[in-house]
Amino acid sequence: MLKPLFYPESVAVIGASRTPGKVGHEIVGNMLNAGFEGKILPVNPFADEILGLKCYKEIGKCPGKIDLSIIAVQAPLVVEATISSIKAGVKAIAVTSSGFAECGKEGAEIQRQIAKLCSDAKIPLLGPNCFGVINTSIRLNASFSKHLPKPGGISVISQSGSLCSAMLDWASAHGLGMAKVVSLGNKADLNEVDFLESFAKDDETTVVVGYLESIKSGQEFLKAARAVTSSKPFILLRAGITKAGIWAASAHTGTLAGADTAYAAAFRHAGVIRVDGLDALFDCTAAFSTQPCPKGDKVAVITNAGGPAVLAADAVEQFGLTLAKIKEDHIELLKQQLPPAAIAYNPIDVLGDADPKRYSMAVDAAQDDEEVDAVIVILTPHSMTQPAETARSIAQKAGGDKPILMVLMGSDEARVEHIKIVDKNLPIYPSPGRAVAALSAMRKYQQWRSMPERVVTRFPVNLRLVERIVTRQLKANLMQVGEVETKEILRAYDFTVPDGGLAGSPEEAVDIAKRIGFPVAMKIVSLDVLHKSDVGGIKLGISSAEEVRDTFDLLSLRVGRRAPEARLSGIYIEKMATEGLNTVMGMVSDPRFGPILMFGLGGTFIDRLDTTSCYLAPVSGDEAMQMLLESRSYALLKDARGQADVDILAIVSGLQRISQLSTDFPHIKELNIDPYIVGRTGTGAVVVDARISLSRTDGE
Amino acid sequence: MLKPLFYPESVAVIGASRTPGKVGHEIVGNMLNAGFEGKILPVNPFADEILGLKCYKEIGKCPGKIDLSIIAVQAPLVVEATISSIKAGVKAIAVTSSGFAECGKEGAEIQRQIAKLCSDAKIPLLGPNCFGVINTSIRLNASFSKHLPKPGGISVISQSGSLCSAMLDWASAHGLGMAKVVSLGNKADLNEVDFLESFAKDDETTVVVGYLESIKSGQEFLKAARAVTSSKPFILLRAGITKAGIWAASAHTGTLAGADTAYAAAFRHAGVIRVDGLDALFDCTAAFSTQPCPKGDKVAVITNAGGPAVLAADAVEQFGLTLAKIKEDHIELLKQQLPPAAIAYNPIDVLGDADPKRYSMAVDAAQDDEEVDAVIVILTPHSMTQPAETARSIAQKAGGDKPILMVLMGSDEARVEHIKIVDKNLPIYPSPGRAVAALSAMRKYQQWRSMPERVVTRFPVNLRLVERIVTRQLKANLMQVGEVETKEILRAYDFTVPDGGLAGSPEEAVDIAKRIGFPVAMKIVSLDVLHKSDVGGIKLGISSAEEVRDTFDLLSLRVGRRAPEARLSGIYIEKMATEGLNTVMGMVSDPRFGPILMFGLGGTFIDRLDTTSCYLAPVSGDEAMQMLLESRSYALLKDARGQADVDILAIVSGLQRISQLSTDFPHIKELNIDPYIVGRTGTGAVVVDARISLSRTDGE
Repeated sequence: MLKPLFYPESVAVIGASRTPGKVGHEIVGNMLNAGFEGKILPVNPFADEILGLKCYKEIGKCPGKIDLSIIAVQAPLVVEATISSIKAGVKAIAVTSSGFAECGKEGAEIQRQIAKLCSDAKIPLLGPNCFGVINTSIRLNASFSKHLPKPGGISVISQSGSLCSAMLDWASAHGLGMAKVVSLGNKADLNEVDFLESFAKDDETTVVVGYLESIKSGQEFLKAARAVTSSKPFILLRAGITKAGIWAASAHTGTLAGADTAYAAAFRHAGVIRVDGLDALFDCTAAFSTQPCPKGDKVAVITNAGGPAVLAADAVEQFGLTLAKIKEDHIELLKQQLPPAAIAYNPIDVLGDADPKRYSMAVDAAQDDEEVDAVIVILTPHSMTQPAETARSIAQKAGGDKPILMVLMGSDEARVEHIKIVDKNLPIYPSPGRAVAALSAMRKYQQWRSMPERVVTRFPVNLRLVERIVTRQLKANLMQVGEVETKEILRAYDFTVPDGGLAGSPEEAVDIAKRIGFPVAMKIVSLDVLHKSDVGGIKLGISSAEEVRDTFDLLSLRVGRRAPEARLSGIYIEKMATEGLNTVMGMVSDPRFGPILMFGLGGTFIDRLDTTSCYLAPVSGDEAMQMLLESRSYALLKDARGQADVDILAIVSGLQRISQLSTDFPHIKELNIDPYIVGRTGTGAVVVDARISLSRTDGE
Repeated sequence: MLKPLFYPESVAVIGASRTPGKVGHEIVGNMLNAGFEGKILPVNPFADEILGLKCYKEIGKCPGKIDLSIIAVQAPLVVEATISSIKAGVKAIAVTSSGFAECGKEGAEIQRQIAKLCSDAKIPLLGPNCFGVINTSIRLNASFSKHLPKPGGISVISQSGSLCSAMLDWASAHGLGMAKVVSLGNKADLNEVDFLESFAKDDETTVVVGYLESIKSGQEFLKAARAVTSSKPFILLRAGITKAGIWAASAHTGTLAGADTAYAAAFRHAGVIRVDGLDALFDCTAAFSTQPCPKGDKVAVITNAGGPAVLAADAVEQFGLTLAKIKEDHIELLKQQLPPAAIAYNPIDVLGDADPKRYSMAVDAAQDDEEVDAVIVILTPHSMTQPAETARSIAQKAGGDKPILMVLMGSDEARVEHIKIVDKNLPIYPSPGRAVAALSAMRKYQQWRSMPERVVTRFPVNLRLVERIVTRQLKANLMQVGEVETKEILRAYDFTVPDGGLAGSPEEAVDIAKRIGFPVAMKIVSLDVLHKSDVGGIKLGISSAEEVRDTFDLLSLRVGRRAPEARLSGIYIEKMATEGLNTVMGMVSDPRFGPILMFGLGGTFIDRLDTTSCYLAPVSGDEAMQMLLESRSYALLKDARGQADVDILAIVSGLQRISQLSTDFPHIKELNIDPYIVGRTGTGAVVVDARISLSRTDGE
């Protein structure tokens, strides 16, 4: 479908102009300068020739077939240009003009119209409000960019034209080559999913880099992103993640971004390498496009100065990597070859006056050492160093199976010069922290790639029972499922729920209490009362028949007084939970990505504060375990002596069960088990209170 | 004391050399090139002349008085050079040679010797293993740096010579001027405290920038840092904060770094602007040295591209600032002057083709708006922009009372060029995130500066009682204070402790229980049993006299069986605590900075995981409140509806009381109240369990 966009043999430019500085002029000029291999057909009713090319009055007058129509006229004229492009039989349209959904209602209406025209004609539409498209393999530069980048493996999708620009400038300065660059603009038709699918299959693309403010379809995005990440890295900067950012983004491309928790879970799920800013985007792109991922987490640091080595060591630990322990024989070898004041242990200090040869020798030693998975080389330039020569000789060492990243301290000016010399073999960073951050992203991606295939365990459950309850609630239009029914549902999914029963009278209550054994808890059951404790509808620790009777009366009377309209279904008598760790576990269905699981300690979703431990359902056992391990809560499960004597497996399997429940029943919009009391290792866990919300739609 | 170091009239260089590349040659050359206003006296027994300067056989032969002796001979010869320098009557010595404490025992011994020689002679010693010293005001460049920086307000102290280098290169590329630069090296004598004291008083210094791996004396550092920060910003990068970093640092300058929690608390206490990497160090230095701090948190973003504006908006919110709401009349004015497709709301989008005039107009509007405290200008260069001219015209707007920071997207190469043009008026950043981060550091510092003076409340307490207990424990060599005594101490500091008493027999136990009322808790009291629950020495919820008797026997027998050597003082009977929020509160005395207060929720120091809510004692009421507000726990105090119905004041005053207790009694090494059960607003809090550890030394 994207072939006519990326590989057109002929391109018409509607709105081509003779006036330099006008978009319609620049695009024609950029295509000409790039040396496009196909035909360029400028269209302008008032010109005969533009930049030496014959100009056509209308697109219908162009000779031969036309693959791609670039529309660069003012917004109100775009509908007409679209109609005539379609009539002329083009296979794809890209609208670079702005003035559409990002500018209010009127623009949005025009956008809707052109999208409909294209969709009716089954023609893919890029934009509007986009920067254009680049494909270096056929020297196509139908964009605002002055220069065609050199060919290479980086492909870019961006919801911002200016970030395409920034990326192109940066890649050119770093000697890095690009495959395809596409600006999504307002995404009236083609969106990130289309291009991710295409890049996943594209042999010319080895690294995918993205800037996105919104995602059209969560499920499709996940699928497409996974298609990419299973064979090549996908580095993504997502913006519009705060309230202020969402507001700014809606003004930008007229689309609305969403809460970041779900996105964070989705990106992790799909193995997307997410970065938090432009610097990191560039830093990671440089590393991934030039170096192999490290096979392990052990880093050797080679330096000619102490301070930067300390900063590197800090960063190594902070980013979850470790300083490699250089092998004894390598240390001996290094000691023999280095001056006496040098340090042969890691960080290896080759001393301030180290020349390219000394650096090379140290890099060889590190590369040869099987205890080393990655090498970071730091050079602080001063009068006795040869930064350019050193960088060049280290670049010659790159290309093996261990990544080498270089840190060149000092001025940007000098670095810019050195980067030019080294060209594309060696990524060069201005500070140790940034090199280590990029390396750590590679390590994480490599770990994700080497994970065993996900096996989502299906537990035997009583599906029928839950189906009955859900259907009954939906029929009765009851979107809030009460505690008793929620517990029934959870019991059907093999959760342990305290023994109990619903009593209609004090006598029934006493019978139930005697059957399940004292002490018991008593709670009012009413569809009209959501927060039982707000109306004083809960009593705990009741230990005699007489107390049960009194409590029955007390609770009933109290509800009658405090919530007179509430219809009382009865009083629930329940065995008191045993002691254990107070946790919460839950699920919220995200409109984009479906069910998201959460876990927290101490009666609160601590981890909601921190997006790292929300996971998309369905989770495998490994993922549920990972979710727990990564959560900030996990550290708190351990006692003062670092032991975690709580039933970890009860938490892990609990998460898997709510994962299964929420994928089995997409109508479940929210599920909250609070508290989920977890006993000591081997003793399981108990659902003490729980609630479910349903929605009419089934989540999709 | 530092006058002969910073303002010498004559400088001898021992180890001056005729061989280019040798340190002793470079330093003389660097001093000559800088155009030092005083006398340069090279000392070398084998040379008559160096770089055109008359050379002396020994320092004693130099004519006239000598203020500063730079020693650049090999380590083993440094002792001799130090002795002859002292004999020659120098007023200060700087040793640039390496091979001292950073190289093992032998070197450390030489270092100790020269430090002793200097201290006996009362001569300040800089280094050894240092980069030298620079003072632009007298054109002194007695360092490894090739170039004397241009004069300006930035002064640098660095424990790494290469970071001095990096700082000088960076400042030169950004056209920023320096006052004094000093490399601390191994800190055998002069250390960060001496230079902070000096920079605090130095009128030529407007911004202090530091790189430190270790700090010699916590209390002195705090005092000196506060002297700086109360009149000028102190931006600090501290390295050696992880295990790996500490290891690397000990190899680097032979000093041992310490746990970061205490440092973090100390830096916050002293208003130090702490950065986490080199980029941030440079970014903040550029902002602080060229712009005024913002008076508030409201930021206007002016941009010519949507994507970077979204990134800026995200960063504004993530860094705790807000997007300014532009006033209606300014919006109208902007709308009149901007093209129709522009956006006059914040972020103000002046469109891709904005020229310097359009940018200037928008900056004027933002500066005039009283709703705006700071301006961030973003420019994405492309064919229709004039980045250099725009930057220059915006630089002309700087200098008012609102900071302006500029983001110049695109290649480093172009940015380097533009920065040269703009010179020192306007800080220029490569990405929105970095500009906003620097602005946020300015905002925080400004808030710290404008805090009302700290008033540490002294609560009326029973000092005598605590004195008696502490003295008794110390005399008996009992470093662990048991629960009963700890609670006595806390009660003396007006903490609420449950009623209770120590019983020697079942009858006594029953009497106590009856007096305080059921239900009660019973706990064994034994100096030999630290973890009562480990031996089954606690029973809760005892509600009758008979149960008290049985429990007394059970606990006594159990201890006898499980901890036969333990001497039992009795059984403590205590009123059961009421319900409330389970918190912990405590203090650990840091060897460098003294008592550090901690607070956490749910029975664990969640906040120890996060260094932001540890504070140095003594705390004022405001600081205790701040400590709570900043803690991650605070978010958890609120219920689902955002309400915090817990007695915040009981927490705040609790923190103040342990602050007072730990400053009153420096022998208290550790204090742990766990749990501290906090009731609903207005109901106070109860100490349920607590423990104190003492130390022989009084913490200093």
